[in-house]
Parts: sequence; C-alpha cells; structure tokens
Amino acid sequence: MLGVEKPLLMSFDGGMNSEKPRRLIRHFRAALVKGAMVVATVAGMEADEGMWLFNAPPRALIRERYGMDVTEPWLEHLQKASVRFNSGGSGSFVSEDGLVMSNHHVGADALQKFGDADHDYLKEGFYAKTQAEEKQCHDLELNVLMTIEDVTERVNAAVKPDLKPEAAFAARRGVMAQIEKESMDKTGLRSDVVTLFQGGKYHLYRFKKYTDVRLVFAPEQQIAFFGGDPDNFEYPRYDLDVCFFRAYEDGKPAKIAHHLRWNTGELTEGELIFVSGHPGRTSRLLTMAELEYARDVQYPRALQRLNRLEVLLTAYSARSKENARRAKDTLFGVQNSRKSRDGGLGGLMDPALFSRKAADERRLIAAVAQRLELEGSAKAWETISHAQQIVKQHALRYNLLEAGLGFHSTLFTIARTVLRAGEERPKANGERLREFRESNLASLEFELFSTEPLYEDLEQLKLADSLTFLAEQLGIDDPLVRQVLGNKSPRARAADLVGGTQLKDVAMRKRLYEGGKAVVAASKDPMLEIARLIDGDSRRVRDIIEQQDEVKKQAHGLIAKARFAVEGAGGYPDATFTLRLSFGAVKGYTENGRQVPHQTTLAGLYDRASSQEFAPPFDLPKRWLTRKDRLNLEVPFNFISTADIIGGNSGSPVVNRKGELVGIIFDGNLQSLVLDFVYTEDKARALSVHSGAIVESLRKVYDAGELVKELLRGGPSL
Amino acid sequence: MLGVEKPLLMSFDGGMNSEKPRRLIRHFRAALVKGAMVVATVAGMEADEGMWLFNAPPRALIRERYGMDVTEPWLEHLQKASVRFNSGGSGSFVSEDGLVMSNHHVGADALQKFGDADHDYLKEGFYAKTQAEEKQCHDLELNVLMTIEDVTERVNAAVKPDLKPEAAFAARRGVMAQIEKESMDKTGLRSDVVTLFQGGKYHLYRFKKYTDVRLVFAPEQQIAFFGGDPDNFEYPRYDLDVCFFRAYEDGKPAKIAHHLRWNTGELTEGELIFVSGHPGRTSRLLTMAELEYARDVQYPRALQRLNRLEVLLTAYSARSKENARRAKDTLFGVQNSRKSRDGGLGGLMDPALFSRKAADERRLIAAVAQRLELEGSAKAWETISHAQQIVKQHALRYNLLEAGLGFHSTLFTIARTVLRAGEERPKANGERLREFRESNLASLEFELFSTEPLYEDLEQLKLADSLTFLAEQLGIDDPLVRQVLGNKSPRARAADLVGGTQLKDVAMRKRLYEGGKAVVAASKDPMLEIARLIDGDSRRVRDIIEQQDEVKKQAHGLIAKARFAVEGAGGYPDATFTLRLSFGAVKGYTENGRQVPHQTTLAGLYDRASSQEFAPPFDLPKRWLTRKDRLNLEVPFNFISTADIIGGNSGSPVVNRKGELVGIIFDGNLQSLVLDFVYTEDKARALSVHSGAIVESLRKVYDAGELVKELLRGGPSL
Repeated sequence: MLGVEKPLLMSFDGGMNSEKPRRLIRHFRAALVKGAMVVATVAGMEADEGMWLFNAPPRALIRERYGMDVTEPWLEHLQKASVRFNSGGSGSFVSEDGLVMSNHHVGADALQKFGDADHDYLKEGFYAKTQAEEKQCHDLELNVLMTIEDVTERVNAAVKPDLKPEAAFAARRGVMAQIEKESMDKTGLRSDVVTLFQGGKYHLYRFKKYTDVRLVFAPEQQIAFFGGDPDNFEYPRYDLDVCFFRAYEDGKPAKIAHHLRWNTGELTEGELIFVSGHPGRTSRLLTMAELEYARDVQYPRALQRLNRLEVLLTAYSARSKENARRAKDTLFGVQNSRKSRDGGLGGLMDPALFSRKAADERRLIAAVAQRLELEGSAKAWETISHAQQIVKQHALRYNLLEAGLGFHSTLFTIARTVLRAGEERPKANGERLREFRESNLASLEFELFSTEPLYEDLEQLKLADSLTFLAEQLGIDDPLVRQVLGNKSPRARAADLVGGTQLKDVAMRKRLYEGGKAVVAASKDPMLEIARLIDGDSRRVRDIIEQQDEVKKQAHGLIAKARFAVEGAGGYPDATFTLRLSFGAVKGYTENGRQVPHQTTLAGLYDRASSQEFAPPFDLPKRWLTRKDRLNLEVPFNFISTADIIGGNSGSPVVNRKGELVGIIFDGNLQSLVLDFVYTEDKARALSVHSGAIVESLRKVYDAGELVKELLRGGPSL
Repeated sequence: MLGVEKPLLMSFDGGMNSEKPRRLIRHFRAALVKGAMVVATVAGMEADEGMWLFNAPPRALIRERYGMDVTEPWLEHLQKASVRFNSGGSGSFVSEDGLVMSNHHVGADALQKFGDADHDYLKEGFYAKTQAEEKQCHDLELNVLMTIEDVTERVNAAVKPDLKPEAAFAARRGVMAQIEKESMDKTGLRSDVVTLFQGGKYHLYRFKKYTDVRLVFAPEQQIAFFGGDPDNFEYPRYDLDVCFFRAYEDGKPAKIAHHLRWNTGELTEGELIFVSGHPGRTSRLLTMAELEYARDVQYPRALQRLNRLEVLLTAYSARSKENARRAKDTLFGVQNSRKSRDGGLGGLMDPALFSRKAADERRLIAAVAQRLELEGSAKAWETISHAQQIVKQHALRYNLLEAGLGFHSTLFTIARTVLRAGEERPKANGERLREFRESNLASLEFELFSTEPLYEDLEQLKLADSLTFLAEQLGIDDPLVRQVLGNKSPRARAADLVGGTQLKDVAMRKRLYEGGKAVVAASKDPMLEIARLIDGDSRRVRDIIEQQDEVKKQAHGLIAKARFAVEGAGGYPDATFTLRLSFGAVKGYTENGRQVPHQTTLAGLYDRASSQEFAPPFDLPKRWLTRKDRLNLEVPFNFISTADIIGGNSGSPVVNRKGELVGIIFDGNLQSLVLDFVYTEDKARALSVHSGAIVESLRKVYDAGELVKELLRGGPSL
C-alpha cells in the first residue's frame, strides 16, 4: 500500500524534511538519515516517467506522446480538488459539500482512533446515513494547495556562499521561517517553503487547512485490504480501498468549488490517465556513495527494526481481540513498510540496477571533467561522499535519540514536544528548531492536544522494547543508557515511566505547554525527566546531521547544475510529499511469458476468495457473501497503469483527459518497489480502485444510496 | 516449549558440543558461539536445584529434604526407561512393546515430514488403530543410555599440559574419537565421550539406538499447543502436548524391559516428583566476561535473526494453506526460540541478576587470591576473557559460514556434508572433523539419506534471505560474498542454486557419498560448488573458534577446581543434552499477590477457550467441542513443579517416589526463562501434562481404547 510510511514514533523529523507534516515518515526517514532529493531530467527518462510540479507540468511531453494539451484551467481544477492527508496520504474532493475520498488505509489512522473495546471501526467499517451521524476525527488535518510562489532568489540571497555549514544552515532556516511567517500573516494560509531540486529551487506553498474533518463512510478492512499482507503489493488485486470523509468549516460542510466529476465508464488498454497526489520520497539521483549507504546501512537497519516491531506487535495482537484492535493500524504500517523495504533492498542488491546507476554517474563525472565552466561541480561527488561518512558515524545515535527509536512511545514524544516548546517558543522565529516555527505551531498544537486514546499496555510494550534496543545498540554500560535505565531492567523502567507520567491527560499537556519554560522546568513528571535527560545529546547529534545535510544540499545543487548543462534542463524534482502530477497509460504487462490484464473485475474477487477457501486474509465480509447475487460481477474492480507513483500517493485521484475521476490509487505491484531509485515501465505498475466498483458496491452492498447520489451529482465539467 | 532449540540449519556444530546429536541446537548454539559448560556446586544452591548425573545422584540432598532413599535399581529402571529424541527432546518407554511417549512438539519434526499437500498430520493428528497402520519416520533416531564410564584419566593423559591450544585440541579430539571407536567396536553401542564440568570430567556414554521408529498417535496441534504462541511459556495452561511412537527392531516392536508403570492419581501440593530427561544447555557458571558477551552480542544477534525468520516464514505461511503446512514446524521452532531468548535477554538485562552473578565471581576470585595452593587458578578469568575477545572477533564469520546462517538451506547442508565426507573419511579417525568420527558415521548417514520431503520454494526463500543476510553482514563487496553471488542478486542466485542442484535426489547423495573424494571433486553440482567455494574460509574460522574453546575449557577446569576447594565438592555439571535427574515438589506460587494453583483441570480448558471466544489460537478441535459432555472435567490437565529443567527436557517423564509415571514435562513458565543462567524456585516452574488427562482424552475424545489398554497394562513395580 502506498501510504507514506507510518509514524511509528511521533518524534520530530530532525528538520531535514520539515516541509513535510510532522507526523510523516519520521521513523524511517530518520531511521535512515535519508537520501537527498535531486533533480531528474528529461534526457534518458523513460516515457511515462515523472512526478511533475504543478507549476512546471510536462506539457510538451504529454502533447507529443498522447496528443493532449494540458490547459491552465484543467490544471488548476485538478490541483484544488486534490487533498493532502497529513496522516500520510492523498485524496480528493468529490462533492461540492466537502466530501473527500481517500484510501481506507489512509483513513486507518483516524478510524483506529475512534475505536474502543466495544467498537472496531477499522475492522467493521462505518456509514453515517445522515450528516448528524458523521464522526469528528481526533487529529486529522487536510491541506489543499492554493498557490505556489518561487522564492529561490530570496533564500539564496540570505545564504552567502562562503558561510560555514553551521552558519549556512542557520541562515537558511532563518530566511525560510521568515518567509513562511510573513506569508501566513498576510494570507492566513498554512505556508511552507519547500526545498526542491536539492536546493536548486525553493518554492513557497500555501495551503488551505481543514482541521474539522468527519468520517462519512468506510468499508470493512477485510474488503478494503482483501488478501492482507500476502497480497499486498501484488497484482492481480481485488481491494475496495476507499473511505470518505467530509471537511467542515465553522461547523458546517465546507463549500468546495473544485471537486471532481465522477466517471464510471470502463477504461481501455492504452488510455491516458493522470494522477494528482503527494508522493512522499524518492531517491532517484542519489550519488553512488549515498546509494551504497542506503544498501549497506539504511535499508538493512530499517528492516531489522521493522522485523522486530512486526514480531512484537503480532505476538501482542495474538493475545486477545482487544489487543489486536489496539495495535491494528500500527501493525499494518509496519508490515507495509517491511514489504516495501524488502522490495527496495532487493532492487539495491541487484547488480543490474547498481551498475546502471554507477555507469550513469561515471558518464556525468567524465562530462564535467571536460567542461571548464563546470569546474565548480567536479568535487561535489567527493563532498557528498565525505558528508555521508560523517552521517554514517552519527546515524545510529541520531536514530536512537533524536528520531526516538530508543523511546518508542507516544507519551515520550508528547513529553519531548512539551519540553522543547518551552525552550523554543521564546526564541526568535528563525532560530527555533524548524518544527516550532510560527507558521507551523497551529498544526503542532492540533496534534499535541489530540484526544486520541492511548493504551498503557501498548505504550509500555513498545517503550520496553525500544529501551532494550537502545541498550543493545549503545551498550548497557553507556553512561547515558545507565542514566536512562536508572538501575532497572528496560521492562521495569518502561512500566515506571508509562505508569507514572501524567501526560496521558490532555489538560496537563495544555497546562505545561501554555505555562512555558518555567512551569515545564518545575515538573517532576518522569517522562519529562527522561526527555530532559537525553535532550542535550539529542540536540547535539541533530546539529551534526543537519549540518551535513546542508553540505549535501549545496553539493547536490552543483550536481544538478552540471546535469542541466550536460543533459539539458527540464524535469521534475525528487518527491517531497507535496502535490505532483503523474501521467501514464492504463496498461497490462507480461510476466513469465503470461499476459497480465490491465484490470480485474468483481467476479475475480469471488474467484480469488474461493480458491483460498475463504481462509483469512482471503475471507469476505458477510454482506459481500450474502449480496453477491445483487452485484454486476462484470464491473471493473482494480486496474493498473504506468503512472509514476510512490508511497504517499495512496488515495490520489486518477482522472481521464476530461479531468473526470475514474479511479483512486492504492498500491503498486512488487515490480514497482524499486521506483524509489529508478523508474521503469516494463513491469512496474500503479494499482487503482476503479470508480465503477466503488459506486456498485456502495449501492448494492452498503445501501449507501445517499452517498452515491452525492457523488454522482456531478462536478464542473472541463 | 522446552524442546532443544530446533535445527534451523542442518549445518555442523563446529565440534564444540559434538557430544550432542548433529541436528541439535546448532543454529543458535552456533549463532551464539556458546558459553562454556561449567560446574555448579552444592554450596549456595537453592533447595530443588540441579540437573544431576545418573552416576552421581544427590542422594543425601533428597534424603534430607524429602526423606527418600534413591536406590540403585530405582535409578537404573528410570535411566533405561528414558529416551532421547535426537530431533531435540526427551521421552520414555511406556509399554513393554516399545511404546514411547514424548511431546507433540518434539514429535513435530517427524509429523511435519509425513505431510503432503493432502495430509497435514502435524495439524490434524494421527492414530494408528493397528500396528500395521503405524507410520515409519523418515529420520528419527532414539537413544537410550545403557552405561556410563569415567574416562577422565585417559583423556587427560593424552592432552599434555604444555601443549599449545591447537595441538591440545587435536590431541583431545584424537583420544576421544579413539575411545569412542573402541567402545563401539566392542559393544556395538553408540558411544560418545561427553565433556562434563568443562573438562573436569570426561564420561563415556553408551547408547542403544533405535532408527526404525513409527508414529502411533498424535492429537491435533490445536489441543497439543492450545493457546499457541500467546500462551507459550505461560501458566495456567491447558495443553495436551503428547504423542506416541513405537520403537521397532528387526521389523518388530522392540521388547522393552524397563518401561514405566502408569499412575493417574491426583498429585498433592508439596509432593516429591522426579524428572528424567535431556536438558540441552545451561550456562550457569559463565564468567562475567562470557555473560556480558551473551547479553551484548549473543542474545541480541540471535533475536535479530529469529525476528527476521519469524517475519519471513509468517509472511510465506499466510500466502496459502499449503505454505502454512510446509513451514509449520520450522515456524513453531522459531517462535518458541524467540520467546525463550526474549525472556533470557530480559533476565540478562536485569541488574539484579547481573550484580548477583558479579558478586559471586568477585567472592571466588578474592578467596582464590588468599590461597597459595590455588595460585594456578588465579589467571583463569583473565584467560577466558581474552579468549572471549578472540571469539567475539570471529563469531560473525563463524556463524555465517561454518554454522551456515548465510546459507540457510537443507540442500546446502547436504552439499557440505557430501563434500566434507569426501575429504574427512579417508583421514585417520582421530584427525577428522568431529562429526565424521567413526562412531558417529551411522547416525550421520541416517540423516544424510533421509527421505524427508524438500520444498523448492521454501528452500529458495530461506536461501535468498540468508544470502541477503550474508551480504548485509560481510558487505556486498567482500570478495567471498562477490564470488558466492556471482554477479546476481541474492534472490536470483538462490533460485539458480536450488533449481540447479541434483542433491534433492537421495540416490545422487548416495552416489557422491559412496563415490568418495574423486567423484565429489568431479561434480559440477552448483550447490556443491558453493559449499566448496566457502569451505576453506569456513574451516579456518572453525579452527580459530575451536582453539579458543579449548583454551576456555582448560581455564574453566581451573575455576571448577578452585570452586570445589573453596565451596566444597559435589554438584552437577551444566546441561549437555545427556540424561539427567531433576527433583522437586509439585507447587503453586504467588504472583502479584495472587496464588497460582499447582494444577489446572479439563474444565479450565473450556473456560479459557470460551473467554477468548474460541478465536485462534484459542479454538478447540471439533471433537473436543462435541465430546465435552463425555469428559470428567475435574481431571487434572497440567501441573507445575519446582524441578530444574531447560530446553531439551520436553517430553521427559515425571515420576513419583515409586517411579510411576504421573506426567510429562512440556514447558516452563515465563519466570523460568532465566534458568539458563540461574536457578530460582521463587516463581519459576516446570509445566507438565498430567497422566490422568492423557488417559481421559485418549479414551473419550480419541476412542483410543487399545492404546490406553497398552499403557495401563502396567510396568514392573519398584
């Protein structure tokens, strides 16, 4: 599934990708101390490649390949109908009354938080027949991109070329925070400066925010995620991976001008489609030094941690139904990431991919060596390699302390946020840790004061395991580890901390946060004490990593410049969890000599379930069994296309030439798991739920006639 | 569950614990490059502590605590009624016609190998109503200990005190092989020299072997392992963890003089019981240097590998029913080890346990320093610490190459055995790698030519994963790794190797094995080529580890000597998967202020299932549901005792003062998971199935009246 990797920890993101909402990716991005974002170019690109900026769409390419002119109104409509789920995915407006469609697995975070011992909405689904029954989410924020403004010159002017990394980093952080604050004050919109082309460009993105979001409809997880982990990232597939929310403003359904018109017609092989969504992260133009780090350190380490968590949570879940409910969304996220990482590592360990990348790099370096005017770029690869070495030395400690892998507990993250808010908020805006910049505080508070339920047993389990991990990795006799454990076993210590903290109480969080530094300093809350204990070390290692990130940014800028010069300009930046446009064809592929068709049907769902004897995870919800006869089994269920997508694109609307919604992205196939590093359209495919199957099942399985009526009321035609 | 940790690999054991059957422990023992076996003493022992040698039972202790005299005939009868399962557990003779009882989870290895796509005996159970229906196992060897002879003097005479480690190791290996060969030639019995008290004693054990073993009865896994992984190592428990085999000789049921008489009477709190079985390994008198290694390296590394395997096999199993069947026994072994290791690491990370151990060591060192006659022992701790450092440097490579963690495939292990057999068999008996000594060849061949089914998909999956692990650990650019992968990805390489090898064919194995060195050398079988490729490196690292093992053995001998002198003689050696006698009381315990009773009943089983809504793994087999009314629900089901047991004791008979069978060991509780390092009878308990529940369910649930009749026919009374 193509949600952005889930926040296993609520730790901060280290300021390195701070244009991303706080909740995102942090665990793995951090666990990984990430690869850089760099520019891809048109030269050498495969045909349907690209996650394009909305202010620089590949008009010529699309005209040439598909004979279509992408117009400004068409683009603006699609942009403003696209929605970012800050919990880690994409979506779209599908009615003028604020109805938003996304994937079930994107909505899962919100669904999970509604549940209690007597209600498992994630598992059983939900349908509000009237607006009065719609359930308000605990902490779901939606963003809609309104405008993009190029602020590259202003950012670059603030960062003088002769600054040392530390000063350069501070200057860049300062000017970005300033631009964001000014923009927010002026427009009232959420304003983020996004780093693109690895420092080649800085764009100011302004978002309209919705924080009153209510659940309208979700099917059972069993049909949304039919086939479970075994069929995840596989194709053919049969998943009704959708759910519906409604955005509210001032207590009433938001009025939305740009919402997508629905088209349930069948798609033909080769037909052009577009995907408008928020790909989370790609690493396509990493240097070899960075790729080797990914292959040798990042991915194995991430998988080690994921395997450990999967076993921990699976064992916990098996103990009772209620345990299973509590851990469900987290466990799904872990399994999803594990399968995705496993595919990625498989790609990295394939000598064919690696030698292709290496040859590409050698070619560019050779070309640079022959051009005097590119002399400035010649050392960039070495600079990155050197920075990567430094990152490598500190990555483990960074991951354990700053990214919180050693303190895997929501309560710990809350404690750290409260602690740091006390210290950061009195500082000048530009000097704060990036997540505390003025323009981000509202979102941070929205999350900090979330009323989501916390489970002491699960908190303890995760914290005990991560304290064990901390002791294993740094050594149980490391002075900081000794202080953290306080002469107790990790289990006993975790029980004390989780049992003793008062941060479970939202009012207490507010009291501390609003009380400020002195009130926080006076608190003896044990979880706060732990956050305080490690904060010096944690900040120090964050500084190191951020400085090297700055060094790499500048070097990548030089490589990008060289690449433009040698291979020609034009292209798209690596993914940044901001809005992008992809395009491609609905298209089957050949595997082991067998033709895999471009779509499945509802009939295929029943065949698959029956071939697996309806054993979990291939069992069907009861109403899908009893209502089979009502369904038109010829309706397309899932389909595939060559569109260039990655984690974060989950829930993206798929539209046709007319801008009509024909489906919703929910996954890629196994062959697409190398897309982080390289696009290929040989066998890699994006998977979507077909619009027809959504309407058919809403009507006939769920008796959700009102919802269908709202969907089909139609949007503006283009 | 207390089976010896399962052979996840069939790799050899590195000669370090070669008294153990080849299949055993190797993965983890090796993954761990083990702790030493050392002597525990009476001084400071807790009351019911001890895994005693049958030729040195704690007569005085038992007389003093329980007022019972352990007589020679009583002991001989129990010894000869006890059976070792070389697949990793214990058992006992329970009829004069060769009937053997063990745990279902010990028999699981054999049950697994009977299955095919249409039969899942492991899951569904089996009952041969007549002898003709009994199913012959593929490769199950049973051993019965007949005599013990002290050969310490002869071994020590061969190993001169001034030899360098390499020569000392060779001399020791040589004289042991010679003693074994002579014994085998003279008696026709399997003959193993067992290293006890870490080189303090060498005893020659002679075993009667049974290799024609047939399955008689097994219940469904669902009742044998009721509660699954969640309830594993928990108490209260409700498991019918038994199965029955029959030993044959010359095609007829073996006639057994020493078999146990059955007693189904209720046990009283405080009642004395004995356990006669084969504890696999304990590490109670490791030095602090070794304990730290266990805590900091061994256990975390083992858990990392176990988590990885658990995820791999769980994901594979979820894909289809047939996959689940194929992987079932291996997956159980992995989960069982994971939970056990997790408990062990929890203990190691508990400062209380560690400081108790450290204080104990300091006390002994101080005492040695004050006695001139113990001067020779003073440096022993430092010697071990130094040897441990060397082991630490080479452990990873040893584990990957020699223990086979980088080549997790039965076919690879077969290839290596064939390759090395060609090289080792022409050598003099005393100079061979220990597993090829004359006295062991019959058992080795029995296993090598096993007709157990091999599944190409599962072999590929495991091999691809372990080649990935190899590349991660040694680095993908390591010269040996490059050669192993041959410019392919791990997945592609594994597919080639498993697809290409002809060693799936038992006849081919025989042809190569019998053809000898030249025939093996001429073979281009790809799996053989891989075994050949790494063999030089693998042997080299094995040499290093074996030499350090010799160094540690000698040093531990000196520590043992000092301990005898300071604390008094008498005691039991650490476990060695050879027959031991434990004793203790049937006894409940107190947990969180609540009294946990000493037994459960059949009624409790139904209560537990119903409280979990009969959801897996708490579902009951159908006949247990339909036949509930027939059962006397007051019959005791499982009971607990203070007997000192560990992995390998699974299936051990539990007898009363009269030597009558009252139960069968199958597990320890969570609190017992530290027993590897330290005995405690505060809350740690051994779990047994009560004899009454076995008879009750055989009669009323399984209609196995004939079997019950055979069981109750009665054995010799003592």
